[in-house]
Amino acid sequence: MDRRTIFFVSDQTGITAERLGQSLLTQFDEVKFKRVVLPFQNTLEKAEEAKEQINRSFQNEGMKPVVFCTFIDDAIRDVIKSSDCAFFDFFETFIGPLEKVLEQPSSHATGQSHGMVDDSSYKTRIDAVNFALKNDDGANLNHYDEADIILVGVSRSGKTPTCLYLALQFGINAANYPLTEEDLDLLMLPPVLKKQKKKLYGLTIDPYHLQRIRQERRPDSRYCALKQCIKEVDMAEDLLNLSQLPFLNTTTVSIEEISTTILQEMGLQRHLY
Amino acid sequence: MDRRTIFFVSDQTGITAERLGQSLLTQFDEVKFKRVVLPFQNTLEKAEEAKEQINRSFQNEGMKPVVFCTFIDDAIRDVIKSSDCAFFDFFETFIGPLEKVLEQPSSHATGQSHGMVDDSSYKTRIDAVNFALKNDDGANLNHYDEADIILVGVSRSGKTPTCLYLALQFGINAANYPLTEEDLDLLMLPPVLKKQKKKLYGLTIDPYHLQRIRQERRPDSRYCALKQCIKEVDMAEDLLNLSQLPFLNTTTVSIEEISTTILQEMGLQRHLY
Repeated sequence: MDRRTIFFVSDQTGITAERLGQSLLTQFDEVKFKRVVLPFQNTLEKAEEAKEQINRSFQNEGMKPVVFCTFIDDAIRDVIKSSDCAFFDFFETFIGPLEKVLEQPSSHATGQSHGMVDDSSYKTRIDAVNFALKNDDGANLNHYDEADIILVGVSRSGKTPTCLYLALQFGINAANYPLTEEDLDLLMLPPVLKKQKKKLYGLTIDPYHLQRIRQERRPDSRYCALKQCIKEVDMAEDLLNLSQLPFLNTTTVSIEEISTTILQEMGLQRHLY
Repeated sequence: MDRRTIFFVSDQTGITAERLGQSLLTQFDEVKFKRVVLPFQNTLEKAEEAKEQINRSFQNEGMKPVVFCTFIDDAIRDVIKSSDCAFFDFFETFIGPLEKVLEQPSSHATGQSHGMVDDSSYKTRIDAVNFALKNDDGANLNHYDEADIILVGVSRSGKTPTCLYLALQFGINAANYPLTEEDLDLLMLPPVLKKQKKKLYGLTIDPYHLQRIRQERRPDSRYCALKQCIKEVDMAEDLLNLSQLPFLNTTTVSIEEISTTILQEMGLQRHLY
C-alpha cells in the first residue's frame, strides 16, 4: 500500500500539532504514513516554501497530503491552507469557540511555555531534572525527604526513564532505588525506604522481557540469565506485596502511561502544566 | 478575578488533551485558570463520577467549567458531554473528517505509543536516554561517534535538560560537553570535539541570568560570581563564533523550543514520533 504523507506545520515548535496528530493517526492502523515536520514557519516567505513542498508531495504521490497545523498567525495559516492538502488546524478550530466561552479575545501572540522568561516554572523543571539525576539508581539515599515519589524495582524495570519523564513533564521530584539482591534475599525494604513508605511506588516487568532488555545491556552475563530474571522479579513482587506497596507492571505500558498512572494513584500534584 | 476551572479528561493518559488545551489557553492571558486532570476515565462508572465533579464545579462557581477531552469511546464521551460544561473533544472533532480523507474507518481502539509492546520504538527511546545519561557533562568522550548531536556550552546553559528532552521525545542520541576554563583560555575546541565538528551545536545564555542560576546551585562561590559568568559567556561565544558553530541563546527559550530548533537547524531525523 502507498504511504500517505502527513505534514505537521506550525509557526511555533509544532510539538502540539505532532502530538495531537499522532494520537489521531493511531486510530488508523491500516494506513502507512510518511511524516514531515515543519516547525517555526513564522514568516510568509517560509510559508510559501512549505506550500510548495506540500504541493510537490501531492503532484508526486497523486494523493492529497494531510496537514496538521497549529498556527497563531492567520495570514501565515492562510498560505498553508491554500495548498493541495487535507487541512486540519487545531488552533483555528477551537480558538473561536473558546473566545465565546471565555468572553475574551485571544491574544494571537506566540505563547511561551516553560521558557526561561517564566523563571519559576523553568526553575521547577530544571530542579526536578537535577533531582532525578542526583537520586537515580540509588546513587544517593540522603534526599528522600525532598522526593515527591521514590520508584522501587529490579534493575531495568523502567525506573530511570520514568523519573526523567516525571521531572521534565510535570516538575515532580522523583528518585529511584533499585532493589538489591540483599533486599530481595532478606525480603525486606531497607530502613531508609521504610521511613518513606507513603512515597514508594513499585515497578515490575515480565521476566522474559526483562531478560531481552538485560541481554542487550550485558550480553551473556549472570545478570541477564533468564533464571536470574525470573528469580529477581518473583522476589521483588513478593516484597512489594508483603510491604503493601502499590505497583505497576510496565511490560506493555508506555513511559507516558506509567508516569500518569503514578500521578493518579499516588494523588501527586503536578508542579508544571 | 475569579478563576475559571479547566478539566482535562481522557480515557487514556490525557497528555494530548493537556498539551493542546494548554496551548490554546496560552492565547487567553487575561484569564486565570484552575486545572483538574482526570486521566484513565475508561469506564462508565468513572465517567459518571467525573460528570458529578464537573457539575459540582459549575454549582460552586456559577461558571461552566471548560472541559478538554480526548475520548476514544463514544459512550464514555457522551456521559462527560452531558455535564454542565463547555465541551471540547479533540478526537471527536477530527476523527470523522479524517475517516473521510483517509477512506478508512478509525479503529476506536486505545492506542499505545512507545509502549514496550512496540519493542523497537521503546528500545530506541530507552537507549537514547541511557546514551544521554552516560555522555552527560563531558563524563565520557569515547562515544561521540555514536552521537547524533553534541551540545557545547558553559556550565548551566541548558545542555543536560535539552539532551534528556531530545532523547525522551525524539529518540535522539545527544551528548554534551561543558566548555572548561582551559578550552576557553586557549580559545580552542579540544581535539575530541574538532573531529566531530558537524555534530556540534552551542548553547549560550545571558550572563546575568546565568549568575542567578549558578547562585542557586553553589551560593557565593567563584563559580557564580557575576564577573566569572560574564567572562565565561564572552569567551564561549568568541570560541563558538571562531569555530563557526551554530548556536542558540537559551535565556528566553523553553526546552521544547531549544530542542526543536536544534533538530531543524541541524537537519536531524527524529527516531521517534
